[in-house]
Amino acid sequence: MNEHVMEFDVRDYEIDLQGIVNNANYQHYLEHARHDFLCSMNIDFAKLHDEGKDLIVSRIEIDYKHPLKSRDKFKVISSVHKEGNLRIVFDQLILRLPDEKVVVNAKVIGVCLHNGKLVKPETVIDLG
Amino acid sequence: MNEHVMEFDVRDYEIDLQGIVNNANYQHYLEHARHDFLCSMNIDFAKLHDEGKDLIVSRIEIDYKHPLKSRDKFKVISSVHKEGNLRIVFDQLILRLPDEKVVVNAKVIGVCLHNGKLVKPETVIDLG
Amino acid sequence: MNEHVMEFDVRDYEIDLQGIVNNANYQHYLEHARHDFLCSMNIDFAKLHDEGKDLIVSRIEIDYKHPLKSRDKFKVISSVHKEGNLRIVFDQLILRLPDEKVVVNAKVIGVCLHNGKLVKPETVIDLG
Amino acid sequence: MNEHVMEFDVRDYEIDLQGIVNNANYQHYLEHARHDFLCSMNIDFAKLHDEGKDLIVSRIEIDYKHPLKSRDKFKVISSVHKEGNLRIVFDQLILRLPDEKVVVNAKVIGVCLHNGKLVKPETVIDLG
Repeated sequence: MNEHVMEFDVRDYEIDLQGIVNNANYQHYLEHARHDFLCSMNIDFAKLHDEGKDLIVSRIEIDYKHPLKSRDKFKVISSVHKEGNLRIVFDQLILRLPDEKVVVNAKVIGVCLHNGKLVKPETVIDLG
Repeated sequence: MNEHVMEFDVRDYEIDLQGIVNNANYQHYLEHARHDFLCSMNIDFAKLHDEGKDLIVSRIEIDYKHPLKSRDKFKVISSVHKEGNLRIVFDQLILRLPDEKVVVNAKVIGVCLHNGKLVKPETVIDLG
Repeated sequence: MNEHVMEFDVRDYEIDLQGIVNNANYQHYLEHARHDFLCSMNIDFAKLHDEGKDLIVSRIEIDYKHPLKSRDKFKVISSVHKEGNLRIVFDQLILRLPDEKVVVNAKVIGVCLHNGKLVKPETVIDLG
Repeated sequence: MNEHVMEFDVRDYEIDLQGIVNNANYQHYLEHARHDFLCSMNIDFAKLHDEGKDLIVSRIEIDYKHPLKSRDKFKVISSVHKEGNLRIVFDQLILRLPDEKVVVNAKVIGVCLHNGKLVKPETVIDLG
């Protein structure tokens, strides 16, 4: 249904001694894109958390196809759908710019908690 | 075959606004444990990189079972095996201490590069 | 008065493309040592925050003397004293192990907030 | 002489359990702005490093004036000048957007190394 696109620059502190972006940083990029995506749907993480509601990641699958290097530009394309009663699935793709080479292909599964208990996503967020 | 265990403390800067360890940090813990594991087999990442050899992660699957919080202690248990001709698979488990509650269950698939080309792992590292 | 010592290992994800620990990570080490120091005095950051009390850093001065590299071990030595009515000063030293070469020399100035307002440190924490 | 301005968004993974950007992340912002500034003068860190040349930070002084929170936007204003024979000084200011409230005021002192030895900055970089 929805699709969200966000552009980034690699920052040198994200590069590790192999001269490429450290693996964990891709998860940061993906998270920032998801939060911006949710924010674009008027879902505010900090505010939800203050109400005892959290959308958390329960599983992540990342395929690393091609590494990003110093000064690279890239975009994260995210889409979201429900799966079953409890799961929200984000499909996310990182493409290097401007050549659109696939960098990372990820599937991120989230669930919603209210006061620490698993609840149906629609009681916490409205994915439209 | 081999098994490696490493203990850690949660550091407060790893906690995010939900009051739990940010997802990407588990990947840092897993990486540090893998590198220490490889180091215990006399495999030195920085030195390998200087020889044009890199062991890189091609895929990661992480199940987040229970979050870590401020001041928690935990251990990472890692084992490694070959899969097919080209893949090295690390099975990694994060357990909270002292109750051994499962925090994260991960499968990390690595491949070896020599001057950027995919090669058989045994030409880069000796897993014993 | 008090002195606190904590040992660390460099983690490879903390290394940047210059092959040395990225500058911001020293601040992480210093913070983790300070929090452990405060914790050893029964001061719990997460709990204080839930009570509306925060000890925050208002100024930091760091001299970078010698860089840490992959696999280095080091210790952080911290001491603390009050300065004037409002300021808490931490003097912190990072020494590489085992040769005790000085890596970083830091002065970190903190102040205490209660519900966002500056208060005397002794109303928030007891430095003994 | 020169001045450089770069805009950023706070990313949620940069927030810590106090609900504000963790101190070390400001150093990341400052570094990324400096590297972009140097890059705008055709100075490429990764390339210099491969030639055995590094511009490293020898001292940093940061005054934390007001914290950034989730979803805040901000800009980093950087200027640079030489000091004495060996030192390059960056004056950097972080201002929250759109109200331009001062977040951080920093002075960052750098020196140049060639094969690990201290050299005059003009042998490594041309600040124009």
